[in-house]
Amino acid sequence: MASADSQENYMQSPLSSWSDGPAKAAILAFVGRVSRQDSPDFLPPEERIATFDNDGTLWCEQPLQVQFFFGREQLGKLAQADPSLKERQPYKAFLEHDLGVIKQQGKQGFFEVAAATHAGMTEDEFHSHAREWLARAKNPLKDRRFVDLVYQPQLELLDFLRQNDFRVFIVSGGGIDLIRAFSEEVYGVPRSQVVGSSVKTRTEIQAGKIDLLKLAELQSFDDREVKVQNIALHIGRRPVFAFGNSDGDLAMLRYTLSGSGPRLGLLLHHDDAEREFAYDREFVVSPLAEALDRSEEFGIGLVSMKNDWRTVFCPDGAVFPK
Amino acid sequence: MASADSQENYMQSPLSSWSDGPAKAAILAFVGRVSRQDSPDFLPPEERIATFDNDGTLWCEQPLQVQFFFGREQLGKLAQADPSLKERQPYKAFLEHDLGVIKQQGKQGFFEVAAATHAGMTEDEFHSHAREWLARAKNPLKDRRFVDLVYQPQLELLDFLRQNDFRVFIVSGGGIDLIRAFSEEVYGVPRSQVVGSSVKTRTEIQAGKIDLLKLAELQSFDDREVKVQNIALHIGRRPVFAFGNSDGDLAMLRYTLSGSGPRLGLLLHHDDAEREFAYDREFVVSPLAEALDRSEEFGIGLVSMKNDWRTVFCPDGAVFPK
Repeated sequence: MASADSQENYMQSPLSSWSDGPAKAAILAFVGRVSRQDSPDFLPPEERIATFDNDGTLWCEQPLQVQFFFGREQLGKLAQADPSLKERQPYKAFLEHDLGVIKQQGKQGFFEVAAATHAGMTEDEFHSHAREWLARAKNPLKDRRFVDLVYQPQLELLDFLRQNDFRVFIVSGGGIDLIRAFSEEVYGVPRSQVVGSSVKTRTEIQAGKIDLLKLAELQSFDDREVKVQNIALHIGRRPVFAFGNSDGDLAMLRYTLSGSGPRLGLLLHHDDAEREFAYDREFVVSPLAEALDRSEEFGIGLVSMKNDWRTVFCPDGAVFPK
Repeated sequence: MASADSQENYMQSPLSSWSDGPAKAAILAFVGRVSRQDSPDFLPPEERIATFDNDGTLWCEQPLQVQFFFGREQLGKLAQADPSLKERQPYKAFLEHDLGVIKQQGKQGFFEVAAATHAGMTEDEFHSHAREWLARAKNPLKDRRFVDLVYQPQLELLDFLRQNDFRVFIVSGGGIDLIRAFSEEVYGVPRSQVVGSSVKTRTEIQAGKIDLLKLAELQSFDDREVKVQNIALHIGRRPVFAFGNSDGDLAMLRYTLSGSGPRLGLLLHHDDAEREFAYDREFVVSPLAEALDRSEEFGIGLVSMKNDWRTVFCPDGAVFPK
């Protein structure tokens, strides 16, 4: 039955925001190969694991990852209580959006600051706080909410994979709980299928109730090789499909493509200055350089935002309450 | 539609290996309350998270957790290559099944030894190795395969919860990858819904392929408060239903019951010397003592193996290839 459905979806060519071209053809061919019962490359549904990076792969990451803006607002509040933060690095650079110093800290340092700003919140408090922020916070360059700047072609791809009995996971360098605050409504991805950077936590008993408290220290920075380790920890199976957009995704892509049988690894190239942004090697903390140079060697397919996507953003914005 | 199905399942009283009694009644009432559309306690499916301990909750853990026997066989091989292990503690106690010394090491020390025995294997090698072992390894007291000593009433409960749109997770002190080697066939639980103790890993590139190697060092010992932290990390949502059998599950049960709205927390009491075993306070590394004494205070329901289960083990054994 799954196979008949798959065949039908496949025939209907459901990726309507994707241009007819090599990327769309590769996706349709791959999904057909693994989901048609009569295919020599058929995979049972439990093997159909797909992993997607988030920042720059599912939503816009310019001018900086959304995590930065989320952390900066909170840091601003903390600096009101403790003005010395405004003079201390790396907080000063964060508050002043000083890209030079931020770049010096590196990607992990950047996320460490962002993560530490929510220390002391319980998981329930953090969740409410994140949803309140996501409901209103806007991208300064696009004057739309961050959450509305998800990519329409990718929403269609997530749906298409699920229709063909794939289990879709997000594997992001961003904070796991920030993504979980919108992943179900916006991506249709259950919280338990989100993997990301995380902070250490501590259980606390108050009035006989057990809650979980966020600490300031990073537990896992989910980037590069750590993405592979976290895929093994959270998913327990090597993906057959992976989609990323930066050197931080290269290990995940190579790991995916290292398995036997049918595999597909894709990299989104932001080459569309008109509709989104054009950037790769020079992006502050998350460049696309090695992965671009070696994509052919590793068998990774390049997706051109400019040529392969008919639409970039969801015209009506995301399904997320204002 | 989900509600009509739920109603139907509920009416059919599907827990046929459960005796009619307070435990079965509590389960049926709880599942009805949260899954009937017209119930004031209705929960949308994404909120229906159930977590189960494994050792002693889903399968037999006597005379010691299965992990012990799995690790000991491997340690025996290592000791052939390095006979000095036979004279060094805690390996000596492990090889000789010396419960006095094992108890002194504590539960974490016990699992550390077990985990370290598989250092150096890739995840694929470990998976094949675990499946080969599970296919043949027998419980010395029951002369049946460990994997055949899963509890029939619990298999029915897992199915019943899933039929009512619960998402079922295993949250075990046992090694995450050992459980994943049989969870899909035997429990119907996808690997990504297994949480457990884990070792650190390292990525390795050989001949252009990326693999993941197990290291000897424990990354997370998934017991007591750490179960709560790992539920937050892997699931990202407080469960509404939890089932355990030892003090190691108490934090998970209290965390589950600390949320607002409908909740059910259950503890299996092994009080059936005839069909399985009768033990609680004195069990080597995983006693049931505090949780037993305080179950009423915390609102945890006790399930008596003797009185609440009509059958204990699956008569035909598990669905796992020999």
